[in-house]
Amino acid sequence: MDYYSSQINKLIEELGRLPGIGSKSAQRLAFHIINMPEDQVERLSSTITEAKKNVRYCKVCQTLTDKEVCPICSSEKRNQKVIMVVENTRDLAAYEKTGKFDGVYHVLHGAISPMLGIGPADIKLKELMTRLQGDVEEVIIATNSSLEGEATAMYISKLIKPAGIKVSRIASGVPVGGDLEYIDEVTLLRALDGRVEL
Amino acid sequence: MDYYSSQINKLIEELGRLPGIGSKSAQRLAFHIINMPEDQVERLSSTITEAKKNVRYCKVCQTLTDKEVCPICSSEKRNQKVIMVVENTRDLAAYEKTGKFDGVYHVLHGAISPMLGIGPADIKLKELMTRLQGDVEEVIIATNSSLEGEATAMYISKLIKPAGIKVSRIASGVPVGGDLEYIDEVTLLRALDGRVEL
Repeated sequence: MDYYSSQINKLIEELGRLPGIGSKSAQRLAFHIINMPEDQVERLSSTITEAKKNVRYCKVCQTLTDKEVCPICSSEKRNQKVIMVVENTRDLAAYEKTGKFDGVYHVLHGAISPMLGIGPADIKLKELMTRLQGDVEEVIIATNSSLEGEATAMYISKLIKPAGIKVSRIASGVPVGGDLEYIDEVTLLRALDGRVEL
Repeated sequence: MDYYSSQINKLIEELGRLPGIGSKSAQRLAFHIINMPEDQVERLSSTITEAKKNVRYCKVCQTLTDKEVCPICSSEKRNQKVIMVVENTRDLAAYEKTGKFDGVYHVLHGAISPMLGIGPADIKLKELMTRLQGDVEEVIIATNSSLEGEATAMYISKLIKPAGIKVSRIASGVPVGGDLEYIDEVTLLRALDGRVEL
């Protein structure tokens, strides 16, 4: 690619390393950045380094935050006795958007996956167990409805139940607004198994 | 979005300003960057500022380069008397990949578009006219086959022809490997009009 200058090539290469950005997108982004006003480029670049420098795990729930304890864990309005376990901070954000959950979270930063060699020690499970020594009423497991998410849910529930804490799993079934004919069989069977009397 | 820390929000916002990156992609990218090793983040950020700082227009053909005159314009292997006019550096790269064009380029950095208020003075046309005062045999117009690209081609050809320089336009028609049934009518008519005797 010596039809681009080495600086452009380097930028395209760096951008192309990011997830979901192929070589065409990386080229488009690179040229866009080069054509951006200098102060905007400066701001983009410094925001990247600043975020990396200042964002860390919340001491309590392990979500990504720039404080020692995240706003949710330190809020008095939240019920600290109900913990929802999620795989990552984006899943936490998804539930926060509903605005209806007033408990707190625990972010695992992954799910158990023997295929990928990710075991219980590779996710933030130890931190969850430490939290459970406090006053906890219920643990709601909201890992994804994937193979790894299900395995993680099973593992956690087996670990916690002996301690006498209530453990629940978010419901699995047909999504609201979903058209039955486009929904996979496993989901359809789950929805049937989990049917609720009216 | 106070379920993310302000630093994460800022990063998501900055990334979301880039073209083709929606809010979901920006979130995914932001979390990816925060989880990247520190040295990689440093490298990404510095590559962005360095590229912006060092990349400029080639003094001759106006392509983006980090030298005063780009490698193509300064190459002795290229025929400096044949100039291909393209809209941007990516189009130049597309023709360079074919490896079959041994002339040089002129990059307009845009196309004339009355709809968007882009006139002849807003693209690098003056620079092209200056080059034509030298020893030029042919100008090949390779602007896009869009409304703006065609208008720009017409405009340039009218401007150059009086000077007695040969002006040509790249052929328009059915792309190689293209299936006729999926090709739009305008292209089909173009291909018919431009038919070549066998």
